[in-house]
Amino acid sequence: MQTQITAPTPGFIFDLDGTLIDSVYPHVLAWTEAFDQFDIPVAGWRIHRRIGMSGDLFVRALLREIGNPINDDLTERIQHAHGDHFQLVKDQVRPFPGAKDLLDALTAFNVPWAIATSGHIRSASHGLEMLGILDGPAPIVTRDMVRFAKPDPDLFLAAAIELDVPIATAFVIGDSVWDMFAAGRVHALPIGVRCGGNSETELRHAGAYRVFDDPADILNHLDELGVREA
Amino acid sequence: MQTQITAPTPGFIFDLDGTLIDSVYPHVLAWTEAFDQFDIPVAGWRIHRRIGMSGDLFVRALLREIGNPINDDLTERIQHAHGDHFQLVKDQVRPFPGAKDLLDALTAFNVPWAIATSGHIRSASHGLEMLGILDGPAPIVTRDMVRFAKPDPDLFLAAAIELDVPIATAFVIGDSVWDMFAAGRVHALPIGVRCGGNSETELRHAGAYRVFDDPADILNHLDELGVREA
Repeated sequence: MQTQITAPTPGFIFDLDGTLIDSVYPHVLAWTEAFDQFDIPVAGWRIHRRIGMSGDLFVRALLREIGNPINDDLTERIQHAHGDHFQLVKDQVRPFPGAKDLLDALTAFNVPWAIATSGHIRSASHGLEMLGILDGPAPIVTRDMVRFAKPDPDLFLAAAIELDVPIATAFVIGDSVWDMFAAGRVHALPIGVRCGGNSETELRHAGAYRVFDDPADILNHLDELGVREA
Repeated sequence: MQTQITAPTPGFIFDLDGTLIDSVYPHVLAWTEAFDQFDIPVAGWRIHRRIGMSGDLFVRALLREIGNPINDDLTERIQHAHGDHFQLVKDQVRPFPGAKDLLDALTAFNVPWAIATSGHIRSASHGLEMLGILDGPAPIVTRDMVRFAKPDPDLFLAAAIELDVPIATAFVIGDSVWDMFAAGRVHALPIGVRCGGNSETELRHAGAYRVFDDPADILNHLDELGVREA
């Protein structure tokens, strides 16, 4: 005799940059140029490994790592310079293979999904538009809407509330260890993607429950994640 | 009573891009633009993971990976386009912290060292000049001088011959798995550096005997590698 017990259908909370759109490498260049503008040389790999954090924490953490003095004004101006430099390279950004199809499949299967990005709506809107979801029905949680960004979990908590899904049954899909750490803080299920340029082991060591290549790879394995055709 | 047995002093064979100079991220962008020019979208992380291979193999491997037809003419034209796009971003390239100091320390300690790069002399000269070693006494082995580049070990074998050091007592220092694989093929001792954006685990899985952050980190640990003040 079968019991009536069944796990709840999960919700999907997606990071944007490096997860759904191929923007990490242009961002590394824009941050490199921003630090250079203030004569602070920071190696590309150190920038790459910190991308996905809150922009403010990101700048402070890098300045501390290379032993540079930190102050609020400098932190603010470097972030501003990054925004300017990113405008010059943002045309190189493309959606990852399968990104739009994955979101469409979740919608078709009545699986709730949302976006939760450390970026402000100003910088995120280009990517959201590219995916055709800027004015869609899915909740979009941006930096502007929470007190602290990743690796604090506020963005993911806000997205789960918007979806009306308990955070513990939500998959959090991200390309950076900061996504994994933030998801782990609140017992969400972190899913890593390699397409932001971090390795499977880095993501697993940061707590990933599963690791896939990119959105197309997740789409090909949706049946492993409790998603069934509605 | 002490025996007279002592291990021979090692030689150091360095990769250039991503190992001594911070050029990987600009190269990712230049390759992205080169593929785009032929309407072939390739995600940044796939490019990043293949950098360090022979340029010809690199293009073929990526085209195969994304299921695009391969032909000699296209392969040649994409490589040429990459060279053009790299010219536009090459001013962003800087030596890594400690790179020049490390080479100077080896010279001061009478430890033989050489450069072995998959790049042609035309593209490598800018980085060599930046390090002040373009016209120095150390052997420089470039793509032009061997039949096959990495992951074939010809570049490292040629460098060991120039140094008059047995390949099995040579450390091969590189940032990519292709350096580690090429060194392993001929039983050199592969040393990985994280500054090209690959993780410690990726480098270890590819056979690294040791992994350091960057040239400055190697310099701080030279005594662990059999180097003694002369």
